[in-house]
Amino acid sequence: MQTFGAIEAGGTKVVCAVGSGPDDLRDVEAFPTTTPAETLARAVDYFAERPVAALGVGSFGPVDLDPQSPTWGHVTSTPKPGWRNADVAGPLGDALGVPVAFETDVNTAALAEHRWGAACDIDSFIYLTVGTGIGGGAFVDGRPIHGRTHPEMGHLLIPREPGDDFPGVCPYHGDCWEGLASGPAIEARWGRPAQDLPPDHEAWPLQARTLARGLVNLILTLSPQRIVMGGGVMKQTQLFPLIRAETEGLLAGYVPLPADLATFIVPTSLDGNAGVLGAIALARDQLAGDSAGVPVPASPVTSGGG
Amino acid sequence: MQTFGAIEAGGTKVVCAVGSGPDDLRDVEAFPTTTPAETLARAVDYFAERPVAALGVGSFGPVDLDPQSPTWGHVTSTPKPGWRNADVAGPLGDALGVPVAFETDVNTAALAEHRWGAACDIDSFIYLTVGTGIGGGAFVDGRPIHGRTHPEMGHLLIPREPGDDFPGVCPYHGDCWEGLASGPAIEARWGRPAQDLPPDHEAWPLQARTLARGLVNLILTLSPQRIVMGGGVMKQTQLFPLIRAETEGLLAGYVPLPADLATFIVPTSLDGNAGVLGAIALARDQLAGDSAGVPVPASPVTSGGG
Repeated sequence: MQTFGAIEAGGTKVVCAVGSGPDDLRDVEAFPTTTPAETLARAVDYFAERPVAALGVGSFGPVDLDPQSPTWGHVTSTPKPGWRNADVAGPLGDALGVPVAFETDVNTAALAEHRWGAACDIDSFIYLTVGTGIGGGAFVDGRPIHGRTHPEMGHLLIPREPGDDFPGVCPYHGDCWEGLASGPAIEARWGRPAQDLPPDHEAWPLQARTLARGLVNLILTLSPQRIVMGGGVMKQTQLFPLIRAETEGLLAGYVPLPADLATFIVPTSLDGNAGVLGAIALARDQLAGDSAGVPVPASPVTSGGG
Repeated sequence: MQTFGAIEAGGTKVVCAVGSGPDDLRDVEAFPTTTPAETLARAVDYFAERPVAALGVGSFGPVDLDPQSPTWGHVTSTPKPGWRNADVAGPLGDALGVPVAFETDVNTAALAEHRWGAACDIDSFIYLTVGTGIGGGAFVDGRPIHGRTHPEMGHLLIPREPGDDFPGVCPYHGDCWEGLASGPAIEARWGRPAQDLPPDHEAWPLQARTLARGLVNLILTLSPQRIVMGGGVMKQTQLFPLIRAETEGLLAGYVPLPADLATFIVPTSLDGNAGVLGAIALARDQLAGDSAGVPVPASPVTSGGG
């Protein structure tokens, strides 16, 4: 088996790794996301010392995923300073001389769950991460949703808890789903980070209900076979039974759910590695010209030097 | 070109037709939906006089779309009296001796828009009908979403207008999207049916905002290239510019939209015929064994007698 490269490019940190799958994941290294030039140079240095046959990149967004677009592989309209319209895939492919596959961070994590994790037995599912923000990736019939750009499920509009006047923390929408239920929202509401709130704190039933309101909308729209949840906030495992009960209650019998909801709303089974493992899967598929899971750009922009 | 049969099976009426496409649609006949036995017998009588090569059925739901399921082609958990677990496709195929294709009513209408209508140039879009209820079908990369069962977009949970205490009319959820914005919701709120309210009535800005809240959630989840809207309420064409403006406002620049929203949120271009035309497209694809658009059951349950 060849060695593949993985980059999980987040808004605050970048994780690089090499390997070929969950049983062969090596040299996982994280560093802060600074400017595009500095950050990409550091990634190039990492892979210069660890040659790979192809590279997969799961990136924070919004990103351009259209293989026909001149800005394929770029971060586009992000408010993150310096990253607006930054080319990510291009400089990496040019410097390393290998094929580069590029996806959203959440579709990349979803691919890892589909290939090796909690969704390996199904083809239509949602991967949701609840942490610094809320992000969702989705597979329909074995392929990630792109559409016009790509989903941005974290910003769903949901009903408010009656009488609750917490304004929410989303700079765009205030009290959208992410504005009410991300890690920073929990900290803003309760004055302490999520991990410092005891498991029996009143924060958790409210958090479960708020998450369930968004899940109901995702279920009604995508009819998933399963929902896989990860991210820092979901390490509060007491949330899972609460979320399942609230989701069932809110749907009120309108949509038939599996008898055992513990198999329907599940935690990630890849621990913290879904991002880099998905990027390795992207790289493998790219080299194989195999579009099972993720479309391969028709004319890769980034094979220069190879 | 062969002649194909179409059934648009709604909760209040059934429409039958024969033909091969928009330029060849004949003998459109509607009759009330009564009991399954009586209703299906009437449809069989209609097609006994008008032989077809294959039949397409777009049905109200929930329905079983799984070709591997013993209850494929059935209406399942509907509250409609007499129709719970009613076999629709089976009796039609048995009596007529032709292949039967079966889909949700809204995915069927979406197929017509994709083949011949307002979505004929794109592969990822949403078809939404706003009338007696709200229903949505969606195509991703040229194929309809099924997932575990099928989408039920009408029942999205959305934020309430501040201070509004209208309880909504959905028997399951009260003030879900359909409960707030369907035709019956408009009539319950304003005391008159939608078509009796003047175009400058205060109902319409509220209606547009309520519809836009759901559209925002669909856009964030599916990233469609276009949204096609039909149904009785959408005959109030003054709604379209209001809906476009509200949708853009609610998204607040987070998701890039096309510069010309008049090409993004559009009316159906098939007038009232999307349902039967989609059923004809289903029948054509079924006979051709062509799954472009809609999966063909691996082992049709309903070829008896053919």
